[in-house]
Amino acid sequence: MTKDLGITVKKSVDFSDWYTQCVLKSGIADYSPGKGFIILRPYGYAIWENIKEILDDQFKKTGHKNGFLPVLIPESLLTVEKNHFEGFMPEVYWVTKSGNNDLGEKLAVRPTSETLAYSMFSKWISSYRDLPLKLNFWNSALRAEIKSTKPLIRNSEFLWQEGHTAHSNEKEASDEVRMILDLYKMLIEQYLAIPTVSGLKTDKEKFVGAKYTTCLESLMPDGKALQMATSHNLDQNFSKPFEIKFLDKDTAEHFVWQTSWGISWRVIGALIMVHGDDKGIILPPKISPTQVIIVPIYKDESKEIVKQKAYELENKLKDSNIRAYTDDRDEYTSGWKFNEWEMKGVPLRVNIGIRDIREEKVELIRRDTRERFYVKEKDLVNETLSILENIQSNMYNLAKNYLVTNTRNATHLDELLSLLDSTGGFVACSWCGKRECEDLVKEKTTADIRIIPFNTRKNISSCIACGKEGTTEVYFGRAY
Amino acid sequence: MTKDLGITVKKSVDFSDWYTQCVLKSGIADYSPGKGFIILRPYGYAIWENIKEILDDQFKKTGHKNGFLPVLIPESLLTVEKNHFEGFMPEVYWVTKSGNNDLGEKLAVRPTSETLAYSMFSKWISSYRDLPLKLNFWNSALRAEIKSTKPLIRNSEFLWQEGHTAHSNEKEASDEVRMILDLYKMLIEQYLAIPTVSGLKTDKEKFVGAKYTTCLESLMPDGKALQMATSHNLDQNFSKPFEIKFLDKDTAEHFVWQTSWGISWRVIGALIMVHGDDKGIILPPKISPTQVIIVPIYKDESKEIVKQKAYELENKLKDSNIRAYTDDRDEYTSGWKFNEWEMKGVPLRVNIGIRDIREEKVELIRRDTRERFYVKEKDLVNETLSILENIQSNMYNLAKNYLVTNTRNATHLDELLSLLDSTGGFVACSWCGKRECEDLVKEKTTADIRIIPFNTRKNISSCIACGKEGTTEVYFGRAY
Repeated sequence: MTKDLGITVKKSVDFSDWYTQCVLKSGIADYSPGKGFIILRPYGYAIWENIKEILDDQFKKTGHKNGFLPVLIPESLLTVEKNHFEGFMPEVYWVTKSGNNDLGEKLAVRPTSETLAYSMFSKWISSYRDLPLKLNFWNSALRAEIKSTKPLIRNSEFLWQEGHTAHSNEKEASDEVRMILDLYKMLIEQYLAIPTVSGLKTDKEKFVGAKYTTCLESLMPDGKALQMATSHNLDQNFSKPFEIKFLDKDTAEHFVWQTSWGISWRVIGALIMVHGDDKGIILPPKISPTQVIIVPIYKDESKEIVKQKAYELENKLKDSNIRAYTDDRDEYTSGWKFNEWEMKGVPLRVNIGIRDIREEKVELIRRDTRERFYVKEKDLVNETLSILENIQSNMYNLAKNYLVTNTRNATHLDELLSLLDSTGGFVACSWCGKRECEDLVKEKTTADIRIIPFNTRKNISSCIACGKEGTTEVYFGRAY
Repeated sequence: MTKDLGITVKKSVDFSDWYTQCVLKSGIADYSPGKGFIILRPYGYAIWENIKEILDDQFKKTGHKNGFLPVLIPESLLTVEKNHFEGFMPEVYWVTKSGNNDLGEKLAVRPTSETLAYSMFSKWISSYRDLPLKLNFWNSALRAEIKSTKPLIRNSEFLWQEGHTAHSNEKEASDEVRMILDLYKMLIEQYLAIPTVSGLKTDKEKFVGAKYTTCLESLMPDGKALQMATSHNLDQNFSKPFEIKFLDKDTAEHFVWQTSWGISWRVIGALIMVHGDDKGIILPPKISPTQVIIVPIYKDESKEIVKQKAYELENKLKDSNIRAYTDDRDEYTSGWKFNEWEMKGVPLRVNIGIRDIREEKVELIRRDTRERFYVKEKDLVNETLSILENIQSNMYNLAKNYLVTNTRNATHLDELLSLLDSTGGFVACSWCGKRECEDLVKEKTTADIRIIPFNTRKNISSCIACGKEGTTEVYFGRAY
């Protein structure tokens, strides 16, 4: 691999450039000719497919079903819930023509599907027997990002799933909101190896139209916060304007209680930011499309023997459900392959050459710690299983340690500002709950309340902004 | 189930109304508020997921990888290949605004992705080492259908997959075109139980921009033809305007040879048309989300015992990889359930009641023939496996018989017209290959050349239109 095919800037020197190079050069994504849009290349899509499979399985196990909604939504539907419409209006793409003809009514390109889905819910739901209705949609959403875009983190179109449910009582809806948030947390922590903080958004930051929004927030290595997923309790805010009513067993008519929730490919961006190093990205084994890359090292005379052994090892690993792959391309040198797979972040590499075959051993190279060591060929499968597990937990622990270290406390505005300016991260503060105080901090520090953590301190001191009695602990942070 | 919840018109009386009722009442799809658009409901989406899984597995086994392309395509890209643009122009939805701002350049809502994909191919391909490049995209395409729409058959947005490949030589590209067509045939015949005719489109009917289009055509029960899938050889028609070149081993620069291919949810529409009866749809076992529906029949005092037995049977069937499901809802009667599952086309029903449990037997009801019979409880799994297989082949054979019976020959225009008017179906004719003759037949009969079959008669007679020497056999038909 020639020099500029690799990552040419250090993560610690220019984090933003490093990130973009990682995304582009590892084959995760590329820029589309349309401004603000990106393309997911096979390597990136394979990661998304893994994420999808894990969540889809959980959604189905918890009684959700998939469907399809059109991407174009008539303007009149979008305006039914006023706050919702006003929130999304500035970033909606509008279809105004088909062929050369002007349309009678403008069509919005899906920014999210609440309005379309709920116009159908009012048709599908009439009795308690139709509830709960728990639907999910794997699609993409479009929101025009004019200013700053960043591949996977902020684009004009992104892959995601959106869940929409309707329930016959309030408790079932609020349980659903929390259950889904926990599923997201499971995915992000256990598979993507990224620790998260769970909690609530403030009224200012919640989803437009929701009663409240629960979310998961994580910290990126530059000290900025990233929202990873959200799960909203919509209460009856949509069921009333959309007239989604049901006849209960008591023959009384009620409006349904609703939830909506989503997670996007942004988590792939987080994965790259959190775990990557100067050589490229590093994928946690549980989510990596390829877990073990086998590189046969040969000269012309040993080629067939070494390749055969590589395939044999690959099959043994596959038999134990390890996603192994042999890079048997003759047109690239071993050195080139090492660099490429390192950049692509495959967690474990197996080098196998003619001498190793004779000595019945193989060389293993860990991507995370870059340690190299030999194992006996007969121990390969067991060693691999245990190393992959170790890599997974090592990656999580490193990230967890970063999160803990970079979550600090402040009791005064100047302390908060100095922490944000020096180390970034989350700054835990007491807050009185007033919007004015939230706005004041934003004005003085450019930081938002990222989250009101579920797990909060017992001792609330005075509000960071007004100094009056605090009612809750919140995490401030500068965000993507 | 009250009367109007069921299908209220006979298939033989009003085929079109019958079809629409089947689609809507079985829970496959529903109309979206946006004109021309439909929603796929969970039952329809589950069928699509099965189709997707079968094809995706085959695509991956044959070396294809999935990716994601944005749904909005800059106008300038779409115009690069002139014929292609002109072909799609009348039905393209255009985004002209984001929020309240006019866009500098209009964005087309994806009618198909050749142009966007190939603008990327020119960036990704530079050497023979980058070839073949074989990508696939599971997404939706939008083409404004102003006049007649029909759910799943003709809508303004449809779910599909589009494959796009680039090759270093002509033969590899033409082999790919045919290999993909065979995969589609395998899906449609072996899983959907619909016989197809494989062949070529005429130049008039081929994909705009292709060298040639191969396709699969089927016959619907009203005698109309339906195009089921297409696979195109693009030759170098796109690689030249998009400048997709590669340096070969001989260090010479060549344009790549390309293919594109797609299949849409239309095949679900075909499935309903071909197999359904007056009671609703009938799903072939291999594609049916639920293969066996178990209905426990109980009074209050036997409820728990019968339900437990039903779950036990369900688990036994599942252990043999049969997709079984127990309808244990108390709020519906058994009769209601029978009608509902009949309408939804589950291929086999198991009735189990307290007397059956005592006598260690269960009642089976076939959806296709509506036969009812008892089997010993201990034989349930084996009987089910063999019946499901029998249903699958029975459904295919019935449809095959219809196709064969309704493929007739004509040697004169008036004979062709009278066949089309009386029985419809395919009419095999000799053709001289001239566009004028194709147009003349269309004008006189409203029928198109649906396909030039690969398997053709040896003896070509004179052209059906001009009477001069015929060069090939073609199938005329009126089409959806």
